[in-house]
Amino acid sequence: MDSPLQQARLAYKPQVPAILENLSEAILVPNAPTGLEEAIVKLFPKTHSVRKLSIQKEGTQPGRKLTVGVFFSGGPAAGGHNVLSGLFDGIKQIHPDSNLIGFLDGPKGLIENKRKILEKSDIDAVRNQGGFDLIGSSRVKIESKEQFEAAAKTVRENSLDALVVIGGDDSNTNAAFLAEVLPISVIGVPKTIDGDLRSQEIEISFGFDSACKTYAEMIGNIEKDTLSTKKYYHFIKLMGRSASHIALECALLTQPNLTLIGEEKQPLTKIVAEIVDLIVQRKKTGKEYGVILLPEGLIEFIPEIRDLISLLNQLLAKEPKPEEAISQLNEENRTLFFSLPEKIQKQLLFERDPHGNIQVSKIETEKFLLELVERGLKEKNIKINAAVHFFGYEGRSCLPSNFDANYCYALGLFAALAAREKATGVILAIKNLSLPPQEWDLAAIPISSLMHFEMRSGKEKAVIAKALVDLQSPSFLRFLRDRADWKLEDSYRMPGPIQFFGALDLTDTAPLAISWR
Amino acid sequence: MDSPLQQARLAYKPQVPAILENLSEAILVPNAPTGLEEAIVKLFPKTHSVRKLSIQKEGTQPGRKLTVGVFFSGGPAAGGHNVLSGLFDGIKQIHPDSNLIGFLDGPKGLIENKRKILEKSDIDAVRNQGGFDLIGSSRVKIESKEQFEAAAKTVRENSLDALVVIGGDDSNTNAAFLAEVLPISVIGVPKTIDGDLRSQEIEISFGFDSACKTYAEMIGNIEKDTLSTKKYYHFIKLMGRSASHIALECALLTQPNLTLIGEEKQPLTKIVAEIVDLIVQRKKTGKEYGVILLPEGLIEFIPEIRDLISLLNQLLAKEPKPEEAISQLNEENRTLFFSLPEKIQKQLLFERDPHGNIQVSKIETEKFLLELVERGLKEKNIKINAAVHFFGYEGRSCLPSNFDANYCYALGLFAALAAREKATGVILAIKNLSLPPQEWDLAAIPISSLMHFEMRSGKEKAVIAKALVDLQSPSFLRFLRDRADWKLEDSYRMPGPIQFFGALDLTDTAPLAISWR
Repeated sequence: MDSPLQQARLAYKPQVPAILENLSEAILVPNAPTGLEEAIVKLFPKTHSVRKLSIQKEGTQPGRKLTVGVFFSGGPAAGGHNVLSGLFDGIKQIHPDSNLIGFLDGPKGLIENKRKILEKSDIDAVRNQGGFDLIGSSRVKIESKEQFEAAAKTVRENSLDALVVIGGDDSNTNAAFLAEVLPISVIGVPKTIDGDLRSQEIEISFGFDSACKTYAEMIGNIEKDTLSTKKYYHFIKLMGRSASHIALECALLTQPNLTLIGEEKQPLTKIVAEIVDLIVQRKKTGKEYGVILLPEGLIEFIPEIRDLISLLNQLLAKEPKPEEAISQLNEENRTLFFSLPEKIQKQLLFERDPHGNIQVSKIETEKFLLELVERGLKEKNIKINAAVHFFGYEGRSCLPSNFDANYCYALGLFAALAAREKATGVILAIKNLSLPPQEWDLAAIPISSLMHFEMRSGKEKAVIAKALVDLQSPSFLRFLRDRADWKLEDSYRMPGPIQFFGALDLTDTAPLAISWR
Repeated sequence: MDSPLQQARLAYKPQVPAILENLSEAILVPNAPTGLEEAIVKLFPKTHSVRKLSIQKEGTQPGRKLTVGVFFSGGPAAGGHNVLSGLFDGIKQIHPDSNLIGFLDGPKGLIENKRKILEKSDIDAVRNQGGFDLIGSSRVKIESKEQFEAAAKTVRENSLDALVVIGGDDSNTNAAFLAEVLPISVIGVPKTIDGDLRSQEIEISFGFDSACKTYAEMIGNIEKDTLSTKKYYHFIKLMGRSASHIALECALLTQPNLTLIGEEKQPLTKIVAEIVDLIVQRKKTGKEYGVILLPEGLIEFIPEIRDLISLLNQLLAKEPKPEEAISQLNEENRTLFFSLPEKIQKQLLFERDPHGNIQVSKIETEKFLLELVERGLKEKNIKINAAVHFFGYEGRSCLPSNFDANYCYALGLFAALAAREKATGVILAIKNLSLPPQEWDLAAIPISSLMHFEMRSGKEKAVIAKALVDLQSPSFLRFLRDRADWKLEDSYRMPGPIQFFGALDLTDTAPLAISWR
């Protein structure tokens, strides 16, 4: 039995962009071609000429029955079910006999043809609900020739007209390659709480807003708590893999005493010194408490740690005995290695992913930093009471904020239109997201236009470039302007829990990363 | 600058019990005396005859100018500021020249006469806000003769008519002794998120509702997440010191696969075996994920650990060398000790509070249990992906739920009335809290009637008895009825974030612990 709020949210009617209100009156028109890097063109012999598609109003288009497949890929992000409901409503609006087939547990479902025909009752049960549980998800990638062939077989067996891939950067890269191989429309939808699937055209991926608002609720509560008891330093690590978008957004929402942004690439010694200094300065003003935010991916940006990790990755690839690998480090790196807390040393040596790489996300950065800070404080005879937190899973599958509910429903409707229009190799991009949904601006962007080459497991691979925090962006500049003030004064701000009812400025705000763009 | 929601909450008007709508028409009348234990009577030569006071409507009472002091004691609980605003509005209603003096940073402020005269602008800035930050709090206790004298001096210097103590069981015990010593009205208000300050008359302490709803939001989100990815077992420890009220309430709100209730006093081996069995059974049905809740105080209830801790406390009191103390354990206890994870062994030996006792709250029960469970699983060749969480600080200082906002405002108004009526040595008790506030039933209860003797730091002391989870209570019986079903089926329930606007069944619900009483 769902909770009363879950039940109430079922009845929410997402707001829809004006152009999507009647799909029969909308068409997609190709823009002028834009140049692609030669190496990317070669990778997509069939689809490299895909153009950006703009949406426009045009007479009344004939409907046709569509059979559309869809799957989730990667970690959950709030609003996923609304992409499904928008897509379902969209294809039914286009033709009442259209069918939506959900592939189960991510790309695996496509490969193995494990599926669920999504009926109205299935969709009605998940409107505006969190999670990906209606059809599940996974991190499986479609990479081998056999997997692509299996996917093509599933497409044939289900007579699909289109396949909608809901995922992050890697999953949309995968969608581009599927578009090249499959004789149908393949459409990508930008999902990830991390906020690193962004471009000039894609203002934000879905799920980012709800995740940040959920984390910011907790951070604000903790700020108020430490301001009340004046006893603790809270070190709060935030999910978000490499990029620090979540940490930046949460910093702007909650104004803690210090937020580390990986993209600033500070050396470890400077980071530790800055935290120690903050604590010393605050103590001088009688404050022995505070709140410090750090992004999950911080450690990857610290230049000397980054070098050490890449060196260790190389050495360990050739040398299975960790002790031998260490002995081959130069003195500087060996000194750094042994200056790290013991637990981190072990993690660097022993916890490796299937590709043999160090699992950066498993490194407990918050504890690691705290240990180094406490060492620094000990030299100054200062002790703190510290508590560490990691917020991640709490924000991925929550009830989507109205922003994400509206955004995802629009993405779903748009995907239905793109399927009718036989768009392929594109990712859906909605702009002006900080305006009311009626005014949103929609386009479908060739996925290939987002791609570049980078080293993955020792090989050059064409992938969608992860968007890092832009140190010239308005939101970062705003943070830069204010952060010095937040150090000693307590400018804490409690966003409170996500609200679904009441005034629009409480329920329907867009992420600051967009509003301040 | 406060967040939009913080600002919007400033405007919320708490609902008020009918009897408190016009304080000039209410009086307190003593009930028939009830017997006290002889030993308790001896402790309170002056105030032992305090009776339960019932509220009733009666003509129009003359107002008189009141000077009331107030302080918070112990950890924050949502709604504290509403006790202050109710108290402020109440004494101003009784007489416009009345004054409210806040003592700063808890009992310390009373001892040192550090205070803040609370003006209307101060109060208006914290209405319906979280935290205790307007005047702060601390865990200092007023125990020595000098401290009682200092408190009396502060009372004289400020010409106080009454002192309102907002705190948990220990703080209200303290209030009873202050009432005995101070020549003014001393009134206790039941605060603690732990929910262990309860009696026949006190249905719940304030802050419990908001804390549980905040934790339940996170637990529900995590449940939905693990149902979507089907990869992780989440071990979630919940704050709440000894008693398991919070764990029980959260279990009823979110229906996880397993919730340990300390008061069931299961042996450690049985707890570990139950979790291992749960994981094995779920794996058989294809489920390699789940959510397990445990209360912070669990370890204190495990009989063999409890015995070991009490034995170690005794041995270590006489024997400063931990190794020597261990060698004096009998074989059974020594075997148990060495079967525990190494980190726990260290915590048992080295981390002690100022009284020399083991700091049970610092033991990372969630990791400790996980380690034992993983050991048990290894024997069966089963591996799980586990994530551990501890929710505590997130829920103490959040924006109070409407329930806590109303409840606390009523407690404040009631405290003003009790001050006018010169009630002393009493704690405020409101019943029928699951009904609309207009129908709540109010009384003031002699604190001494809640007291009993227990061993504290090796001495018999008179304290308010902590209310543990009653294994015969309707809410526990409901849990008992359903929990077997929750193990293998996923009956997860997502309460979602606390809502402040919209339908009453979404915004104004009482804790289940009361509703199902």
